Amino acid sequence: MSKPNAILAQSGGPTAVINSSACGVIQELIKSGKVGKVIGATNGILGVLKEDLFDASAEKPEAIEALKRTPAAAMGSCRYKLKSLDKSRADYERILDVFKAHNIHYFFYAGGNDSMDTADKVNKLAADTGYELTCIGIPKTIDNDLACTDHCPGYGSVAKYVATSAMNAGRDTEALYTTDTCSILEVMGRNAGWIAASTGLAHRTEEDAPHLIYMPEVPFTFEQFIRDVKEVYQRLGRVFIVAGEGLKDEKGEYVTAEKSALATDSFGHAQLGGVAEMLKAVIEKEVGIKTRFNKLGTNQRSAMHFASLTDVKEAYMCGKMAVKVALKGISGKMVTIIREKGKQYKSTTGLAELSDVANGENKVPRSYINEQGNGVTRAMLDYVRPLVQGQAPITIDADGLPVYMRFKRKPMKQVLPKYM
Amino acid sequence: MSKPNAILAQSGGPTAVINSSACGVIQELIKSGKVGKVIGATNGILGVLKEDLFDASAEKPEAIEALKRTPAAAMGSCRYKLKSLDKSRADYERILDVFKAHNIHYFFYAGGNDSMDTADKVNKLAADTGYELTCIGIPKTIDNDLACTDHCPGYGSVAKYVATSAMNAGRDTEALYTTDTCSILEVMGRNAGWIAASTGLAHRTEEDAPHLIYMPEVPFTFEQFIRDVKEVYQRLGRVFIVAGEGLKDEKGEYVTAEKSALATDSFGHAQLGGVAEMLKAVIEKEVGIKTRFNKLGTNQRSAMHFASLTDVKEAYMCGKMAVKVALKGISGKMVTIIREKGKQYKSTTGLAELSDVANGENKVPRSYINEQGNGVTRAMLDYVRPLVQGQAPITIDADGLPVYMRFKRKPMKQVLPKYM
Repeated sequence: MSKPNAILAQSGGPTAVINSSACGVIQELIKSGKVGKVIGATNGILGVLKEDLFDASAEKPEAIEALKRTPAAAMGSCRYKLKSLDKSRADYERILDVFKAHNIHYFFYAGGNDSMDTADKVNKLAADTGYELTCIGIPKTIDNDLACTDHCPGYGSVAKYVATSAMNAGRDTEALYTTDTCSILEVMGRNAGWIAASTGLAHRTEEDAPHLIYMPEVPFTFEQFIRDVKEVYQRLGRVFIVAGEGLKDEKGEYVTAEKSALATDSFGHAQLGGVAEMLKAVIEKEVGIKTRFNKLGTNQRSAMHFASLTDVKEAYMCGKMAVKVALKGISGKMVTIIREKGKQYKSTTGLAELSDVANGENKVPRSYINEQGNGVTRAMLDYVRPLVQGQAPITIDADGLPVYMRFKRKPMKQVLPKYM
Repeated sequence: MSKPNAILAQSGGPTAVINSSACGVIQELIKSGKVGKVIGATNGILGVLKEDLFDASAEKPEAIEALKRTPAAAMGSCRYKLKSLDKSRADYERILDVFKAHNIHYFFYAGGNDSMDTADKVNKLAADTGYELTCIGIPKTIDNDLACTDHCPGYGSVAKYVATSAMNAGRDTEALYTTDTCSILEVMGRNAGWIAASTGLAHRTEEDAPHLIYMPEVPFTFEQFIRDVKEVYQRLGRVFIVAGEGLKDEKGEYVTAEKSALATDSFGHAQLGGVAEMLKAVIEKEVGIKTRFNKLGTNQRSAMHFASLTDVKEAYMCGKMAVKVALKGISGKMVTIIREKGKQYKSTTGLAELSDVANGENKVPRSYINEQGNGVTRAMLDYVRPLVQGQAPITIDADGLPVYMRFKRKPMKQVLPKYM
């Protein structure tokens, strides 16, 4: 009988290092000699459902190695969310049908908590129906909000980039404060403020940006915000603000333009757009200083040109460990990162139940946020500092720019009827 | 009699390398032994007018050297614009009064064409009133739109960063196109499209972002834009667009939301905000694909963490050359960069009349833009490629982040009555 095949899928928002995890999975599986093909799912779980698969183990070894120097998701990703087994049973059964059709008995899934939920349900359905399947999750999210792990691959790199971006743009504001007096840097993080909080690393002295950091964990009020901005402006003559995109008010609702009478233009129209634009409008109206905003958007989660070496190494380690665990016959777990005790930072891996990860959420603890709720504490800086260490190597070509790899994606023959 | 003093001022929008030019000026002046103090104007010409000056030559040598690794404007900048000699005569006379009061006979001014205009008028007024003054301009603008020079210090670094950002975010869109199908990267350049055009370096294959580049030099029409987006979407299933912030219509007027009936929300309100948000609204309405936008803002002109080594070196060369020229007794000129003929890129410096720079503008030539007006030609790539070569060294500390220098700015004693 032929060796079982393994499948790997990438899910959700890309990061600078999810491909490093993929590299670990593919290389370790090939090295083990225990599987036939390492199959890639094109665009995550969508590729499984559509039977849109390719032979990842047929990619050139140097292409597989170059995953460590390539951002985003080399196999493609998606945001397709499976519901409960009751509601999405057809999807779950289809996944197992595709696995059976391609002799797939190992399922590696890199993603956030929704993905861990999917992996958990696939794992349970396989067990219930007597199909031999080993499911292992690999943590991935720039938001750093997964439960059961000290931190998530992807976070260290976005932290390094946004903190550096705050330094850079902060110096710009400091140079030109006589006209551009206030600047806002909007960063990702709809529910957790880990990314915003990481920019505290840039604030080494009172002079240094950011002077104010707002995170979704602390209820946002316009009154306090305006007071904060005025205080910094009076003290320094300039203000640099970092705002997480998902700021919420005391009722836990997103702070949006429609809810703020302050954020109206001179015609009484509500200002549309993101948090930064709304805060800009509020500052210009209530504090009366010219305000600019930068929105790094997807540039922050794909910034391979200045990614954290620690993050790349840990992402790779998680990928390799997922395979080692799977080959021991363990299933239904996600690989976690454990921060070892001691002065010198060192991390190892552990395991968590997929269902525990699926149902948990890791927000920035209140003790990591200052009393006023507009900055971070030393505990936060101590937490994030080791994660941004080192610069991940990239390849630069004659154009003076990075070179990223693209998989050939040799398609697997489709054998099942069309599904979607 | 004591040696004459020199003054240096930085003007307009900061760049990653304007401090490298300052480094060249200060180091070369100190080395020459021909001047007393090198005086820094705090916040550009505002510092001169307010007699807010500091002793730049008293800064530590290692701080002066660290200018090469520090973005923005270490002496402070401003956007204060002097008008004609008739209209702003008091300002010009005040400048000369401050120069006289501080024994300043050398004036180095790093900036764009408005700054060169100011330097020119100060130079002429000094000559007319018999005050011995040598004025030399140093080119600086990320916009790359100064006349009389092959290119401008600051441009190579922003080009390197935005092209890399287009690569990074382009890979993100490629990975997640099943939900986030279209992305727009808004870049600076209100009148000239040099920055947008530089992202053409990232488009190495048809797959690679950006697929469409829009520059202010080509009249923008919504009809063509929608056709372009649909064509790319049908061909690749995703679209990555770079838009210069200053797109103009056929009448030469800025394309703003108010002018486009297409860019209205479901309530009929005009979408406010920048070009990217407006284009996003148009695409979502007319093409029907989900669109994101990134606005790098001031992050693009301060990105020292990935600045061009070529740019840093040329900026430094321009600063040194300004001093060499001034000490020869030449005045009323701006240092230019000359691209030498030959296959291997090599640059030297030249000189241009300040008035010629003040009255000129260097836009992207039509031959650098493709026929359809939505991309660039090989000529553009050949022009920009040498300018992004090499990565400028930075210092990284135990926080894993860059270390930037801040001048002590030991203030000069004020001897004149208050002016502003």
